[in-house]
Amino acid sequence: MQTFNPNDHPHRRYNPLIDEWVLVSPHRTKRPWQGQNEKNNSEALPEYDANCYLCPGNERSNGIKNPNYTDCFVFENDFAALLEEEVVHEPNLNPMFQLKPERGINKVVCFSPKHNLTIPEMEVSDIEKVIQTWKEQYIELGSKDFINYVQIFENKGAVMGCSNPHPHGQIWAQSSLPTQVAKTQNSLEKYFETNKRSLLKEYLDAELIKKERIVLENEHFAVVVPFWAIWPYETLLISKRHFGTIIAMSKEETLAFAEILKGITIKYDNLFETSFPYSSGIHQAPTDRVSHPEWHFHMHFYPPLLRSATVKKFMVGYEMMGEAQRDISPEKSAAILRDLPTLHYKLKKE
Amino acid sequence: MQTFNPNDHPHRRYNPLIDEWVLVSPHRTKRPWQGQNEKNNSEALPEYDANCYLCPGNERSNGIKNPNYTDCFVFENDFAALLEEEVVHEPNLNPMFQLKPERGINKVVCFSPKHNLTIPEMEVSDIEKVIQTWKEQYIELGSKDFINYVQIFENKGAVMGCSNPHPHGQIWAQSSLPTQVAKTQNSLEKYFETNKRSLLKEYLDAELIKKERIVLENEHFAVVVPFWAIWPYETLLISKRHFGTIIAMSKEETLAFAEILKGITIKYDNLFETSFPYSSGIHQAPTDRVSHPEWHFHMHFYPPLLRSATVKKFMVGYEMMGEAQRDISPEKSAAILRDLPTLHYKLKKE
Ligand SMILES: O=P(O)(O)O[C@H]1O[C@H](CO)[C@@H](O)[C@H](O)[C@H]1O
Ligand SMILES: O=P(O)(O)O[C@H]1O[C@H](CO)[C@@H](O)[C@H](O)[C@H]1O
Repeated sequence: MQTFNPNDHPHRRYNPLIDEWVLVSPHRTKRPWQGQNEKNNSEALPEYDANCYLCPGNERSNGIKNPNYTDCFVFENDFAALLEEEVVHEPNLNPMFQLKPERGINKVVCFSPKHNLTIPEMEVSDIEKVIQTWKEQYIELGSKDFINYVQIFENKGAVMGCSNPHPHGQIWAQSSLPTQVAKTQNSLEKYFETNKRSLLKEYLDAELIKKERIVLENEHFAVVVPFWAIWPYETLLISKRHFGTIIAMSKEETLAFAEILKGITIKYDNLFETSFPYSSGIHQAPTDRVSHPEWHFHMHFYPPLLRSATVKKFMVGYEMMGEAQRDISPEKSAAILRDLPTLHYKLKKE
Repeated sequence: MQTFNPNDHPHRRYNPLIDEWVLVSPHRTKRPWQGQNEKNNSEALPEYDANCYLCPGNERSNGIKNPNYTDCFVFENDFAALLEEEVVHEPNLNPMFQLKPERGINKVVCFSPKHNLTIPEMEVSDIEKVIQTWKEQYIELGSKDFINYVQIFENKGAVMGCSNPHPHGQIWAQSSLPTQVAKTQNSLEKYFETNKRSLLKEYLDAELIKKERIVLENEHFAVVVPFWAIWPYETLLISKRHFGTIIAMSKEETLAFAEILKGITIKYDNLFETSFPYSSGIHQAPTDRVSHPEWHFHMHFYPPLLRSATVKKFMVGYEMMGEAQRDISPEKSAAILRDLPTLHYKLKKE
């Protein structure tokens, strides 16, 4: 019998953050690809687009004009999935038909006035302003009595359902803890109660010793391809210090966070020399007015691309009915990302 | 204060099958769409394609020639995600780095020799042959000592990562219970222990009285847009009788299953008058040699399209970081599907 080799043999790995398994088929990238190709995102965009509803001074579909903003700009989403309004509801007592009204607020955060400037190409000082905006929003939204969780995220690229290339993210703040956050909190809590330490601190400390899956690191943060990653080039950005929310960051940590955000997104752009699509999101303690010593600030990056700028991983049949499945080992992905230059490919001297 | 209306007000619904919530934003389809469009799948295909590796008589990439098959044809996947081989593995005792080798077998099931004939256009008697093949595979694979679960599924359409339009599905059989199946089993089991009845039987009985979310029904099966559906036109096909596996179906039930499979896929094709993409999969009792009275045979259909043949729902940022979110109420989707003709649009007399 052969000895198990994680780079050759199918196996399952356990994700302690959400208490789920993932199937790893490391030998599977060898298969030829005859399926759908995505559009490559590499066309050069202008700094200002008169038809973009996010550019400064332009009119949005509801007739409101954007101000001539010069750095970060936040507004309420014109097509919100959540509404503030409180409604009267008589609960259905049948366990098969459980339904609860949900209140919330949706915002859009433009990262830069420039239509063509995404995070990897922004100045670190401008990324700091985005972080400052996230902090302000976390406080403003989180202090409302009907808001218990603030989800900050970004969909980047048409393949990620992003309808506008203008650099922007979103914030969905709501009454309930969303499913993924509740699962994470549950795991962090159990671990903290048993071990009196942060699950993610322990995990990161172990990864920093192994170094096998670390992509980037600075004094206050590290980016790792998690042992249990689902997406081909998924990464997890973790704070080295154990704190629960974005507003607990010191000035130096904020700068280090901005730097590593730029760092990981440059790596991504460099991977296939394209404006790299992904969904990213910050997971942090709820704003439910309860103390959460178990929470450890982190940010997920879920990029869909697998083989090239145009071939993505499809999370379909087996993945939907069975479980998430990946075709390349997390260790290999980490090595590939780690070895990429830290300078953005557009700045490369030929 | 306004009274809650499920067609206007954002709310969350509970999925008792996997113990998770979904966010419903029924007012949200009103927003304009400026994002990515998919290719429309409506081009006419030939009955035989010399370049298709699934057509009868053609050579596959490993040099093996397909037989001149005349109905259903099964073979081992040339690019399997799972392998049969047993390997020696020393378990890592660190709870952060849990990994287990996984053994399994991957098969491909061609539904028809005709390159252009998908389930909605097949004869019921030919669909019965597909079901017969699924039964045989469930027995053959499930009787191997290292196989504890047999996942039968189909990815249809390029947008679902399907690399070949030739009508086919897949079977992944493996040692472990995949994540989604384990969650479902857990819920079915809890319910059965407490109530001594099948969760899905009780659910279906309630839906058959309400009629609000039923799309199709015959003597032995019904198709419903589940109360907790995630995808815009997601459906759940449930057997009326409580049995756990495909091999427990009587002859009449098998015919009724074939008929309703044709019925729901015709509805789907008719929705946007296109070859409708989806991932579908059968959930049934494991083959782990233990009795499973809690299991209730069902089949999920997860179609991505939302607004038209070219605009899909993106399950991205919020959905990945927070929770699944839908933009149309399940009741509305059910009514739309229910009202569609039962005759395939291509057979319509102009
Ligand atoms: O096996 P196929 O059809 O080549 O591949 C497709 O289905 C598989 C099972 O759902 C997925 O893992 C792949 O990402 C998808 O492209
Ligand atoms: O809000 P947007 O950017 O129009 O929409 C995008 O992000 C949302 C939040 O992840 C998703 O619900 C939508 O499906 C997606 O198209």
